[in-house]
Formats: sequence, structure tokens, C-alpha cells
Amino acid sequence: SLAHRCHHRSTAMLDVPFLPFCAFLGALGLLCVAMVGTWCQHWRGGFSLDGSSRTFNWHPVLMVTGLVVLYGAAALVYRIPNTWSGPKLPWKVLHGSLALGAFVLTVLGLAAVFCFHNSQGTPNMYSLHSWMGLGTVLLFSCQWAAGFGAFLLPWAPAWLRALYKPIHVFFGSTILMLSVASCVSGINEKLFFSLKNGTMEYKLLPAEAVFANTLGLLILIFGVLVVAALARPSWKRPDSDSPDSRQVRDALGG
Amino acid sequence: SLAHRCHHRSTAMLDVPFLPFCAFLGALGLLCVAMVGTWCQHWRGGFSLDGSSRTFNWHPVLMVTGLVVLYGAAALVYRIPNTWSGPKLPWKVLHGSLALGAFVLTVLGLAAVFCFHNSQGTPNMYSLHSWMGLGTVLLFSCQWAAGFGAFLLPWAPAWLRALYKPIHVFFGSTILMLSVASCVSGINEKLFFSLKNGTMEYKLLPAEAVFANTLGLLILIFGVLVVAALARPSWKRPDSDSPDSRQVRDALGG
Repeated sequence: SLAHRCHHRSTAMLDVPFLPFCAFLGALGLLCVAMVGTWCQHWRGGFSLDGSSRTFNWHPVLMVTGLVVLYGAAALVYRIPNTWSGPKLPWKVLHGSLALGAFVLTVLGLAAVFCFHNSQGTPNMYSLHSWMGLGTVLLFSCQWAAGFGAFLLPWAPAWLRALYKPIHVFFGSTILMLSVASCVSGINEKLFFSLKNGTMEYKLLPAEAVFANTLGLLILIFGVLVVAALARPSWKRPDSDSPDSRQVRDALGG
Repeated sequence: SLAHRCHHRSTAMLDVPFLPFCAFLGALGLLCVAMVGTWCQHWRGGFSLDGSSRTFNWHPVLMVTGLVVLYGAAALVYRIPNTWSGPKLPWKVLHGSLALGAFVLTVLGLAAVFCFHNSQGTPNMYSLHSWMGLGTVLLFSCQWAAGFGAFLLPWAPAWLRALYKPIHVFFGSTILMLSVASCVSGINEKLFFSLKNGTMEYKLLPAEAVFANTLGLLILIFGVLVVAALARPSWKRPDSDSPDSRQVRDALGG
């Protein structure tokens, strides 16, 4: 029927191929890293390790690079069609290594803000941003350790892997959403701290505010697109481990 | 095999039924509404329509109630198993009405903050919170209008509905994630504005800060659980409209 033919045509219209989408995501991620670096270098005085606000500047750069962009790259490894055949181990090692790299940058990013607060005599961990951010990093460390124990070490039985996999997938997307929400609240808070003098007030929307607000929106778009790519059924690795693994995955919405 | 039996057992363990989960979500949503009301009433001076900060107080209450809790209820309507058989129209009307209610509260919430800013001579729309929040509301208005035109009015052809449905589902979850991120950045920003005197400074973590930080975390948990419930395949309405509708849904990851 005509309705059916149109229907097929519209299905094809929506069917973006993964790799060009991924290249676009990579460019968007690099743009976010470049913009957060430019913000800190050009408007916030650059970088140092002396405990001043130039030490703080490592915090946004390391968090956006690690907990958003590199984390997103790690999450998308199993969506590359090349990973669907042949031995799984090299891809597991790549996924775990990218996630470990993201985690190391994240911990350095935390170290930067704690070092800044301590050398200024500012208390740590009072704002909603800090609670949400530290919660995200704690979830991430559990996620990495549990993934390493269940999927990379050889001792976990198949039923445990099948049980844990949908949980790992669910928290994979959740942690990325939380880290994006943390970045946005952090950028918002930093602009209120930094822009409060005369003609440079945040509310007068100087160039720095427009630039950093735009960075925040791009980080949001990056996060939404990565989570959408992870959720898209036709981009998932066809699961051949066991005839039931699809049911298990369905049980938690992985 | 033993592995298979364990596997089935673990699948069953993960299989939470929808309605108790939904009751828990409802209680969590009501707790968020009660807490944001308590915050504004007990610590921020209560409510009025005089353009003062008591007018602003409507903003967080209406946004959490409309754009998070009522919006979440509207999004979950088609996950109720009762909606899967019988005529669709009453459920469409319920879904559209709850979303319209959420939208009306959201617009009133925007009116509250614009009225407050205008009567104080504060510029509107400069912070990242405001950009993200207004973007979320604009997406929501497009979502409601397009959903009404495509699914409630009788004139849209079947192929257009099939094309638009996965897009509507995708933006349904995305708008909720953006509204939760907006709430969190707004609560964070409001606490920095409000808590800046002596022993009541935000950084000294007075009771109000602990209370509102906790509210922010509960809103995050509510949003993550609603998005997870929406994504879970076994809770989705089995689609009987056309033999191809599953493929269409898969094409966008709806």
C-alpha cells in the first residue's frame, strides 16, 4: 500500500549510520574541550599548580575532558560494528582503558579543586554542585571496579556477567547524565563567582558569559546525543552469548 | 544447564513490576513537591504576588511540580498495562491533559521569575540556568504542539504518525533530563544568592543548605528513575498498529 511504502521511506530517512554520527560526536567533544580550555586560558588567567585560582582552572578542563568526552568515547566502544565479531578481549581492554583514562583525569580534576579550596581556606563539599559531582565520581569508581571484576577478570561465572551487564549499561548512561548536569551547574556557579564587578557582571552578559553559557549548552547536547546513541537498539551489539541474554537485557531496559 | 537455571533466576530477580515502582515514583515526586514548598515557605519567606522575592518563590515550586513531577506522570501514562488494550483515545487525552497541565504550571513558573526580575530591575535571561531552562520550555512547547497535531487531531496520516512517534518518545525523555538539570543548577544558584551572610553562608552548610541540596539530589533520582522506566523495553506498550512500527521505533532508539 501507499501508506506502507511511505512508511518504509520514512524509516530509511531516520536511519543515520553510526560512524558518521560518531565522527560528528567526536568533533563536538573536541570543541567542548577546546572551549573549556580557551575559557580558562583567555578569561580566567590560565593554569598553574600554586593553589591559586589558576590551579582551580584545571578542574573544569579535566572534568569536561575526562568525565564527559573521554567517558563518552569509552561508553560508545561497543557500538562500533567492528567490535561485533572476532575476539571480545581487545575491545574490552579498550573500553576499560578509556574508562580508566577518564577516571584518572576525573580524580586529578577533583584534586585541583580540593587543593584550591584548601590553600584558600574555603570549605569543601558544601554546594549542591559538589554533592552531585562527588556522587557521580563515586558511582563511576564503583562502575569501573565492578566492570573490571565482572568482565575483565576471568573468574566471574556467566550467570553473574549476564545479571550484571544490564545494570552496568544502565549506570553507564546514568553516570554520563549526572556528569553533564554537574558540569552545567559548575559552569553556572563559576560564572556567578567570577563575574561580579562593574561592567563585567554576569547579568550584563559580557563576552565571557556568552562563551561559557554556549559551552554549557554544547556539553548538554553532547551528553544527550551520546545517551541517545547508547539507547538506540539498531546500534547495539547483537548479543550471541546466550539465547536468553536479550530477555535479561530487556528486564532492566539496558 | 545450571548456568541457564541461574540465569533465569537472575532475570526474575531484576524483573520489578511496573505498578509498585510507579507508586514509589509517585511518593518520591510528592516528596520533592513538599520539600520545595517547605524550602520556600520556611526559609525563603513564603509566597505572594507583589513582585518581591516572595513572588520569585513560586518559580521553584511551579517548575518542580510542573516540569518535573507532573511531566513525569504524563510521560509514564503509556507504561500502565491497562492502556495497552481497548480504545486509545481516552489515554491519549489523559497523556495530553497531564502534559498540558505541566505546561501551564511551567509557564506560570516562568511568569513568576520574569515578574520578580522586572520589578527588581534585574535583567532576564543571562545565566546558563536561564538559557538551559528556557530552551527546555521551548522544546516542551514544540513537543506538546506537535504531539497534539500528530496524535490527537484526526488528520495526520498513519505514516506521519509512525515517523514522528520515535522522535516524540526521544524528546520526551530528553526534555525531562534537561528540566532536571535546570532544576539542579537553579537550586545551586539560588542557594549562592540567598546564603551569604555571616553564619548563614552557603559554605558553612546551614540547615537550609542541607535541606535544599537533598531536594536537588531527590529531583535527580526522580528524573533518572522516570527515564529508566521509559527506556525499559518490557514496560513498553506492545505496538500493534503496523507490522513495521517496531523497526521505525528501533531506527531512532525510541
